Amino acid sequence: MGTYSEIFEQPHCLCCLLENQRSAVEQVAKEIKKRDIRFAFLAARGTSDNAGRYANYLLGGVNGLPIALATPSLFTYYQTPPNLQDALVIGISQSGQSPDIVSVIAEGRRQKCLTLAITNDPDSPLAKQSDLVLPLMTGPELGVAATKTYTAELMVLAMLSVALSGEASAWDEVAKVPQWTESVLKNEDYLRNSALRYRYMDQCVVLGRGFNYSTAYEWALKLKEMTYISAEPYSSADFMHGPIAIVHGGFPVLSVAVGGKVLISMRDTLKQIKDDLNGELMIISDQKEVLDMAVTPVVLPSGIPEWLSPLVTIIPGQLFAYHLTCIKGFDPDQPRAIHKVTETR
Amino acid sequence: MGTYSEIFEQPHCLCCLLENQRSAVEQVAKEIKKRDIRFAFLAARGTSDNAGRYANYLLGGVNGLPIALATPSLFTYYQTPPNLQDALVIGISQSGQSPDIVSVIAEGRRQKCLTLAITNDPDSPLAKQSDLVLPLMTGPELGVAATKTYTAELMVLAMLSVALSGEASAWDEVAKVPQWTESVLKNEDYLRNSALRYRYMDQCVVLGRGFNYSTAYEWALKLKEMTYISAEPYSSADFMHGPIAIVHGGFPVLSVAVGGKVLISMRDTLKQIKDDLNGELMIISDQKEVLDMAVTPVVLPSGIPEWLSPLVTIIPGQLFAYHLTCIKGFDPDQPRAIHKVTETR
Repeated sequence: MGTYSEIFEQPHCLCCLLENQRSAVEQVAKEIKKRDIRFAFLAARGTSDNAGRYANYLLGGVNGLPIALATPSLFTYYQTPPNLQDALVIGISQSGQSPDIVSVIAEGRRQKCLTLAITNDPDSPLAKQSDLVLPLMTGPELGVAATKTYTAELMVLAMLSVALSGEASAWDEVAKVPQWTESVLKNEDYLRNSALRYRYMDQCVVLGRGFNYSTAYEWALKLKEMTYISAEPYSSADFMHGPIAIVHGGFPVLSVAVGGKVLISMRDTLKQIKDDLNGELMIISDQKEVLDMAVTPVVLPSGIPEWLSPLVTIIPGQLFAYHLTCIKGFDPDQPRAIHKVTETR
Repeated sequence: MGTYSEIFEQPHCLCCLLENQRSAVEQVAKEIKKRDIRFAFLAARGTSDNAGRYANYLLGGVNGLPIALATPSLFTYYQTPPNLQDALVIGISQSGQSPDIVSVIAEGRRQKCLTLAITNDPDSPLAKQSDLVLPLMTGPELGVAATKTYTAELMVLAMLSVALSGEASAWDEVAKVPQWTESVLKNEDYLRNSALRYRYMDQCVVLGRGFNYSTAYEWALKLKEMTYISAEPYSSADFMHGPIAIVHGGFPVLSVAVGGKVLISMRDTLKQIKDDLNGELMIISDQKEVLDMAVTPVVLPSGIPEWLSPLVTIIPGQLFAYHLTCIKGFDPDQPRAIHKVTETR
């Protein structure tokens, strides 16, 4: 029991949400539509903050809802929260315990905003402060590094986006996610073998853009939490505005570059890293054209729509981080210095 | 001419803004107050994005205005921009050239939002698309690594915040910023000598929180651009939610921990890094209690209010990055792989 088995529980957890939570999500969407919402104000930390990054593109691009990622210290230490009139206030937290995230929801409530908690614990302080609660239903997560609760958070957000858009055909696409996740889990042997090459890597960059900006952040976080590598995530555009200077011959760049609207941006950045700077690429993709640039290509099944791809692309990232941790001689279930529930103010 | 002289031009540039731009800023504040603004939607990249992080705390905490940091790819590649009704749309860019930032402002205009450009080039495409323009007035910036335009962006934001709040006494505090920046520039010899210790550092973490979250990001960016160190910035709270696992004995943690509301959060995190994990600290602060934890303490003048401190705290960071670049044998004015104007979509 722990991180490894939880990675493999993901297809089942996602099925479970689809089978049991559709009507709850549709009810939440109905409540949101009743209000004249101008923007969402979203509070989260760590892995849940990366789910927030997915929400930023999903609810922003598909549902037209601008997202402000909260600055919790304005609610806790400074006690000068902004005016949240006409905001939907969302808190995402596996445990629902962190006082700073609870504070943002409590203030939203005080300002009479509609509040929504997405959490694995419907009895948590976060859930109790919220008008609406969408549970993750994964069962207890024992691994310190979150895996199944991350993809469950993304699934809840994807279901919410579909319910808000009212596009019935999109439910058929969401229904295929569990089988795509099954399919990438079958790639475990390849990922375990590939991880050997990275035994002595102590720093890297992780790139993604658009919907998979979230994947870059979450993959980098798994690497930091379990392998202790300095893995810094970027969008390909932000990377060009300065940080690309760190790339030298052989420097490892991990990336997610799936078919879709931002592929051209990712491809151009990866090409520059390889051809001009001699960086070394690991690439998760469904596109032969970009996979051919990689020393370590990770092939995805074809046909995954870009907006749902983050639910699938993180899984090879999790498996890679897990096996690299073992290869480096660390215990994936006992990362140093961190605990399952982190309480910050 | 270049980065070094531009670092030392900063007190003069800040004086120049204070002397010449107060009425322009007050006029902009008046236009903003005429509208029923619910939130600001802010687009920027690189150094200017770090000025956006300052705006997030300043306009959010002091002026009650929630800030959504834009996702430019929704405007360019995806062409599915969110609904910006009742938003103030802000673009920050030294050059005013990057097509993605211009796209966000253009879409704001199309949606009939009030638009504001903060740029060093009042004839740039960004300025031309905007209803309101606040120029940085620094003169041309030749250094590829932005320095004087960063503090000028912060100054314009600080002046805008004061004008929006209408608190006349705050102008007296802002007026003291140039002398504080003069004072920290006098610390150059200490910073040059201190940088020697870091000759072979190839990765580090940079921590700040609240108003100085921006400083952590900007200091890390200068290190990446000029010294090619993997320097990853965090708030002390985000750092606790996973990334702290990368700290081992001797691991370098650079930080900004000034007196104010989040000092206790920074102090507790730094104490854990030093006492429990044996990390090695460099700390920019005006507080003896935290400076005593550092192998490399950088003393700030006392009496700087926290909300203005980012205009001062970045300067030792710039000087340290500059001298470390020279010590490592690189040319601060010719960073590899990057150019002064980066155009991304």
